[in-house]
Amino acid sequence: MGDVKLIGIWVSPFSTRIEIALKLKGIEYELIEQNPFDKSPTLVKYNPIHKKVPVLLHNGKAIVESLVILEYIDETWKEGTPLLPKDPYQRAVARFWAKFIDEKCFPEIQKLCFGSKQEKEKARDELPKLLKILDNEVKDKKFFGGDTVGFVDIVSIPITYWRGAMQEAANVEVLTNDEFPNISAWAEELQTCSIIKENLPPREKLVGAFRALF
Amino acid sequence: MGDVKLIGIWVSPFSTRIEIALKLKGIEYELIEQNPFDKSPTLVKYNPIHKKVPVLLHNGKAIVESLVILEYIDETWKEGTPLLPKDPYQRAVARFWAKFIDEKCFPEIQKLCFGSKQEKEKARDELPKLLKILDNEVKDKKFFGGDTVGFVDIVSIPITYWRGAMQEAANVEVLTNDEFPNISAWAEELQTCSIIKENLPPREKLVGAFRALF
Repeated sequence: MGDVKLIGIWVSPFSTRIEIALKLKGIEYELIEQNPFDKSPTLVKYNPIHKKVPVLLHNGKAIVESLVILEYIDETWKEGTPLLPKDPYQRAVARFWAKFIDEKCFPEIQKLCFGSKQEKEKARDELPKLLKILDNEVKDKKFFGGDTVGFVDIVSIPITYWRGAMQEAANVEVLTNDEFPNISAWAEELQTCSIIKENLPPREKLVGAFRALF
Repeated sequence: MGDVKLIGIWVSPFSTRIEIALKLKGIEYELIEQNPFDKSPTLVKYNPIHKKVPVLLHNGKAIVESLVILEYIDETWKEGTPLLPKDPYQRAVARFWAKFIDEKCFPEIQKLCFGSKQEKEKARDELPKLLKILDNEVKDKKFFGGDTVGFVDIVSIPITYWRGAMQEAANVEVLTNDEFPNISAWAEELQTCSIIKENLPPREKLVGAFRALF
């Protein structure tokens, strides 16, 4: 297994993704918790380019960017629960939706909640369209790839969990659960996985942190 | 091998990535060339979410997003030249730099060349910092991952080839090759690979197309 450390921040859904994946694989690790208000020398040392969490340290080697880390975990500890499906086409589908969540949906959520007035207005137009696309995709699915938690489920938590707390912190009352019933059902289903449920911070704690941060 | 088609546009470095990868793997394919001024019903049918090239059609199944397609090609046709290295850590390094090129560098190049006045000014500050980081990374390397062309080399062409033509089309005279000697050396080395060289459109043709497009 080697020496496994995670430089993370509990308030980051991207750090939490890695904690969930490591626990699903049964990998023991040491969490080096960062202060969200201050970038530590350790973080800057191991992620000099982006200076962001999460950073996985495996036998002293640093791996950064949460999607890259998830693939690394899956390829390094093959014996545990697989994160990505085996079939190349299904793997491509999973990677497509992961990019969609990270590059399209989440930046709009950030703008909607904590952006400038202009960004907020634009996100209010854009985000519902993006979430509707995702909502259609998860219709009639238990987890994204089938009956067990996998890559896209873990990747989804900025949408399926963090979004609610961010909207509450920013007093954004649009985009309720009723508008995206399939995403809501998916979010509930994810809570039936004890490893996911136990690693999500309490909603009130997240709301408080976002109010303090922004 | 199955039925392989590529919906592409010669003026897109992202389409060209896929042509290079398919040829490196020795995969025969039919190119469905799109008009860059008009999104065809075929493109919209197979990539309804982004409506962008490239789209790889393999036995009728559509795979989109060039980085996702490159991984699909590597996983599907394992017998050809490997694109990504074998070692999980080296794979993570390659994926990190691919993201850096696509999410950080290329958007700034687009803004520098074809953005609003404000975007151009911001990109003129940002882009040199990003390219300097990449320049340091490729110092003393032949190809990115060693002695043969691989994933990051193919991914690099928006930076190592297209950038010059885009800057010329937009009359942007900053960021010359002298400022990034290692990227320039890398760009030259890539041309020693005949599959890459033969698949890059002539520079004057690209410059003309960008002048017409923007």
